[in-house]
Amino acid sequence: MAKKRNIIVGQSGGPTAVINSSLAGVYKNAIERGFDKVYGMLHGIQGLLDEQYIDLSTQIHSELDIELLKRTPSAFLGSCRYKLPEIHEDKAIYEKIFEILNKLDIYAFIYIGGNDSMDTIKKLSDYAILTGQTQKFLGVPKTIDNDLALTDHTPGFGSAAKYIGASTKEVIRDALGLTYKKNMITIMEIMGRNAGWLTGATALAKSEDCDGPDLIYLPEVPFDVDKFLVKVKELLNKKASIVIAVSEGIKLADGRYVCELGSVGDYVDAFGHKQLQGTATYLANFLAAECGCKTRAVELSTLQRSASHMASRVDIDEAFMVGGAAVKAADEGDTGKMVVIDRVSDDPYMAATGIYDVHRIANEEKLVPREWMNKDATNVTKDFVDYIKPLIQGDYQPIMVNGLPRHLVLNIKKTRGSRK
Amino acid sequence: MAKKRNIIVGQSGGPTAVINSSLAGVYKNAIERGFDKVYGMLHGIQGLLDEQYIDLSTQIHSELDIELLKRTPSAFLGSCRYKLPEIHEDKAIYEKIFEILNKLDIYAFIYIGGNDSMDTIKKLSDYAILTGQTQKFLGVPKTIDNDLALTDHTPGFGSAAKYIGASTKEVIRDALGLTYKKNMITIMEIMGRNAGWLTGATALAKSEDCDGPDLIYLPEVPFDVDKFLVKVKELLNKKASIVIAVSEGIKLADGRYVCELGSVGDYVDAFGHKQLQGTATYLANFLAAECGCKTRAVELSTLQRSASHMASRVDIDEAFMVGGAAVKAADEGDTGKMVVIDRVSDDPYMAATGIYDVHRIANEEKLVPREWMNKDATNVTKDFVDYIKPLIQGDYQPIMVNGLPRHLVLNIKKTRGSRK
Repeated sequence: MAKKRNIIVGQSGGPTAVINSSLAGVYKNAIERGFDKVYGMLHGIQGLLDEQYIDLSTQIHSELDIELLKRTPSAFLGSCRYKLPEIHEDKAIYEKIFEILNKLDIYAFIYIGGNDSMDTIKKLSDYAILTGQTQKFLGVPKTIDNDLALTDHTPGFGSAAKYIGASTKEVIRDALGLTYKKNMITIMEIMGRNAGWLTGATALAKSEDCDGPDLIYLPEVPFDVDKFLVKVKELLNKKASIVIAVSEGIKLADGRYVCELGSVGDYVDAFGHKQLQGTATYLANFLAAECGCKTRAVELSTLQRSASHMASRVDIDEAFMVGGAAVKAADEGDTGKMVVIDRVSDDPYMAATGIYDVHRIANEEKLVPREWMNKDATNVTKDFVDYIKPLIQGDYQPIMVNGLPRHLVLNIKKTRGSRK
Repeated sequence: MAKKRNIIVGQSGGPTAVINSSLAGVYKNAIERGFDKVYGMLHGIQGLLDEQYIDLSTQIHSELDIELLKRTPSAFLGSCRYKLPEIHEDKAIYEKIFEILNKLDIYAFIYIGGNDSMDTIKKLSDYAILTGQTQKFLGVPKTIDNDLALTDHTPGFGSAAKYIGASTKEVIRDALGLTYKKNMITIMEIMGRNAGWLTGATALAKSEDCDGPDLIYLPEVPFDVDKFLVKVKELLNKKASIVIAVSEGIKLADGRYVCELGSVGDYVDAFGHKQLQGTATYLANFLAAECGCKTRAVELSTLQRSASHMASRVDIDEAFMVGGAAVKAADEGDTGKMVVIDRVSDDPYMAATGIYDVHRIANEEKLVPREWMNKDATNVTKDFVDYIKPLIQGDYQPIMVNGLPRHLVLNIKKTRGSRK
């Protein structure tokens, strides 16, 4: 009997609206390429270490299930934020992982994630080479933050940008309808700790039927409270409703986060990232006191990464494509690599997959270039908007049941039950 | 030459996703019934007092414009929060309004709004009767809060409920994907100062593919922090991810808002309503300290009332219908009345318009009945959900341009320019 050729796939890091479309792409291509089984790690590498995994054929029973999976936000398999130790620090953990992979006849290990997840792919592929093991390790890019190096953009970003663009239009209209004679300032707080891609995406709202945000502050450039106040006061003389988009991660020149000027407690995740909250609330209170007008804070918060009801068709399709491309690459013998998206042309937009050594990607952060902001860094340029626009095009209508979008959910009991 | 028969229409109070569908209904039915002109007050009665109005034919040029208007959130004409004085307090203001109405040959004055707006209809129709004037005054119900008396429900509520239900499903999935071994508590804060209809709508998320929120707290019942903590601690022993929905307006037994326990500044609007913010943030910080686990606050804030990209077809159609019905009622001689929606049957859902004396509606608040909450008032019942479900059915797809929903916007220059 020939040795089984199985695949195991996991999801890691923050959720996106299309992370499961990549999972669907992995599954579908693996089946088409004749792999025997496709296992899913539950909660990524952390769950795998507890031998928590499922056979995906117990979860996906039809083409309709594939379509539902593509439209289901957040990690279907569960995610984790788990940083592997350096190999020399703790070999036992690597031995345990490879013992499980060998037991399951794993040919390829595919990990859908962002920067930190690519660190996992790097370490596991390094370990396999160091110890002469043959499993392939492939990364599939995923992050709403769009901060991965070498890929033109990341799956998940386009849908978050589309949701943010649409919500910004709605918030601006909401504010316009409410302001008559009296000023009102709305501060929108957008995700993106260090990279301003999503905050810049609020500029998508600018169109024939909308002025877009009046000011946009990205985290790449130090935030100057005094200059900010001058700008806002200038605007207050010109128009009644002012809408300002700020990244959750804007910082003062001295390195303090603006949100630290407020009074919200802090929390540090397993990768040492500070959890941020309250930038918009702080600025809204600050402006209310300084300008004496009504202000309000709108935090898009978790909705911007899980709003599959407003996903971009381009994004869902590309997420599916990179999932499939990872299986293809593994099947052809690649390892220690991440699939990327190469932009072939802007208009008409065309893209293809490529592949890069994960050592060139892991732990790197792609920031918004300074030249894509205006002179005083209070807005983004046309080049920035032209870059994003193709990524938000088209829709996959949610599959509506009883008035709400239907999702595919993990059925663990079924897995552990009678199905073999 | 026969006297002109013109209509003037205004929008007032908080925006909704479908308030403009009612405006479209007024406009279309007025044209069909042969009224000469349809004027729009800019920023409601407050703008009218400044003689700010437009001829709607300068804004709506085609059937496509009507469709765009039906899908445009927030008050197209601009809204206001302006309370008319009692008639005996300030007759001059009434005289001024009627002078403008007479100058414009207004046959009927139609006001799209909530409780406070119906107060305006009541006072103006009373004044007309007192002074022997013949204009008709009709109210069109509008509020996401669903707190108007006598109507089965209010246009705007169904779309907000649909958006809240969909977002709750997405937030719950987001949290599920992130919790492994460690607990996480998500607090969702929903609009509705005194009425819990929207907060209860989070229960729509409960379906074959979602457990729904674990706890739901409406503002109708005093909130007990100690009992709340006991409930949460019980749940933490049973499941990793806990999602709790709270109204922005939940209050302690002593009458203090829960958000007042935090430290956010306050603001009182023209009707003396306290502006609330920070209930979820306060409770998230409180639970983080008490339970020692990760917590997060998600405020749906302004998005829930302006998310026309997730509007309910039933709601858009009914909003259009009540707008038309107000014109019909005026044309048939009614005045001092508000159009209502009567539910004819639940399943299949059927509804028709009715009409009530506005004196029976203005300044009344319809709250969630106690029997539609469970015994300890930590969730809503099946009857509650069955009541809402028909109102969130069906979609009007946004008209997408360049990846984002297109809206119809006011073109004031055109109005003041060459068109007559």
